[in-house]
Formats: sequence, C-alpha cells, structure tokens
Amino acid sequence: MRVFGIDCGTEITGFGVVDLEETARESRLVSKAMGAIRQLKTASTAARLDHVFRELTAELERWQPDAVAIEEVFYSVNAKSALKLGQVRGVALLAAARQGIPIAEYAPLKIKSSVVGYGMAKKEQVQFMVARLLRLDEIPQPADAADALAIAICHIHTAQTLAVQGLAPMANTLPPVGANRAGAGQ
Amino acid sequence: MRVFGIDCGTEITGFGVVDLEETARESRLVSKAMGAIRQLKTASTAARLDHVFRELTAELERWQPDAVAIEEVFYSVNAKSALKLGQVRGVALLAAARQGIPIAEYAPLKIKSSVVGYGMAKKEQVQFMVARLLRLDEIPQPADAADALAIAICHIHTAQTLAVQGLAPMANTLPPVGANRAGAGQ
Repeated sequence: MRVFGIDCGTEITGFGVVDLEETARESRLVSKAMGAIRQLKTASTAARLDHVFRELTAELERWQPDAVAIEEVFYSVNAKSALKLGQVRGVALLAAARQGIPIAEYAPLKIKSSVVGYGMAKKEQVQFMVARLLRLDEIPQPADAADALAIAICHIHTAQTLAVQGLAPMANTLPPVGANRAGAGQ
Repeated sequence: MRVFGIDCGTEITGFGVVDLEETARESRLVSKAMGAIRQLKTASTAARLDHVFRELTAELERWQPDAVAIEEVFYSVNAKSALKLGQVRGVALLAAARQGIPIAEYAPLKIKSSVVGYGMAKKEQVQFMVARLLRLDEIPQPADAADALAIAICHIHTAQTLAVQGLAPMANTLPPVGANRAGAGQ
C-alpha cells in the first residue's frame, strides 16, 4: 500500500510518499519520497495555483499512490488566509481527483494522535516520531514535508486499524489493505 | 472583446459571457451565454471540485474569452466557509490558467459601482442594471448567473475607462483594449 500525503500551505505545500511494506513476518513503513512545492512569489494567484497543480500532478503520476491523504482544516487566522489556503487545497484535491486516486481527509488531532499517540502533541514531537517510524537518520526537512509524511502515516495506521477490525477503511475510497502485496515495495 | 465572468459559490458557481461589440458608430454589450454549475450534493469534495473544473473548462473552451473576470473575496461568515469557497475559487482560477486566459479580479464594491454607479448598491439593483445594460427582457436567473454577468461587465467597463485614459487594463494580464478607438465609450 502506497500513500501520498499532502500538507497544503499558502507558501509551501509539502508532500510525502509512504509505503506499507508487508511480509509474512512483519509490516513496516518506508519513506519513498518527500518534497515541498514553493509558491512562485512573483506570479499571479492563478499562475501559482497552476504551478502547485502541475507539480502535484507530476508527483502523483510518478508515484502512483493507492490513496492520497490530506489534512482537514476547520480553522484559520482569518477568513482571508482561509480563502487562500482553500484555493491551494482545492487544486490539490483536484489533482488527485483527476487521476482517480481515492482521497482521505484527517483532522489535525487525529493525525497527531495516530503518529505520536497524543492528539495535543507538539510539532517537534510529530516530526521526531515521523523520523523514527520511517527509520530516518534526520528529521525530514522542510517541516511541510515532515507534516505530509505524518498525514500519510496517519492514513496507513487508520487503514491497518480498520483492517484488523474487519472494516473497510474509508468506505468507497480504498481497496483492502495489502491484499496481494506481500513485500511488493518499489 | 469577450469576457467570461465567474461568480464562485460553495453551492452554485455562476458564469456569464459578455461581448463588447463595437462598430464605427457605437459600442454595445451583448450577453452571449449564462449559466450555473451546481455542486453535486452526494459526491465527495474532490469529486465536486472536479465537476466544477470540468464544467468551467468546457465553457471556456466553448466561448474562447479574451479574459476571465472573477470577484475578489476578503471576507466570509467564518474560516470554514472561506476555506470551502477558496477551494472552488482555486479550481476556477486553475481552469482559466490552464487555458492561458488572462484573469482579472475585482472587489465587490468595484463591481457594484461599475454596473450601478454606486458601490453600496443592493443585489436587486445590480441585477436590474445587468438586465438593462444587456437589453434582456428579464433579470437573469439564477442570481449567480446575473452576478457573473455583472463581473464581466465590470471588466469591460474598466477596460474601456483605462483605454480612454491611454492605460493598459490590468498590466500584464490583458492586451490593450481599443487602442484605435477614440470615441468608443459606452
């Protein structure tokens, strides 16, 4: 199972690709890629959104994920920044939808508790645990990429939990987890 | 000159196509098309955004406008609704950008004062003036389509005013309007 996490931002949009590699003996999380798409500062809003859309589309085509995981957002400093963030989020959702990739959304609390085990965890704790779960020597940079990896991990953990319970993860959005995929890493 | 106005909404996104037809003797505004794209209520957010994107893309391909005009938004009831509106606005801007169509943004006050001559005009006054300026027998329905026509008219009026002043409308976004058009005021 491969998950593409997206952390939308008005300045930087992070992404991270995480595989769940399963063998008969164990399952483990493997980081396949991470990165950050920076907004073109000089360009118009439309050109900046087009840039994010093209970059995300290229990464999704490259990594062919089974699912896209993205943060739910309910709050913002003010309506203007919420609108700007919404614009980026809109094109990110569209990029996934255009390729027919199922999308799952997770609230910030859920992401933190899934990665750290504690919903009110600090940003640094999340980054530390992301590095640990993925066996990385360093905390992923920039922070937006680490956040995107956290979102992807949250999705895999959620899917695993639901699979154990015999439930389909995110009804109608995901194939069964690791159905015929023992050891099928990239 | 043909302008495609878009009025983004979380439920309905209106659009309207207005031509500025000019002869040696007069120039007049002509409504070529109007419509409303309704959100698919049952679908996921991504599927709904994809629907809006596909519909707008099809209309832009059909009408081949010289410019897209869209409302600037600075306020909202709350951050959540601003984010939802931003998502729709993001895919609308992307649809125009993908086709390389210049985009102009106008504040609500500017649109009202351009159409009615008064920035604090009521919605009904704007709709009445839209119908009058376009010589329509009835006020365009739904209201979202009328609003989109108002945005398109605002862009044409602004371009005309700037042309009279010898200025390029919206630097770097539009070709000069009516460079050799002395006396072509509305």
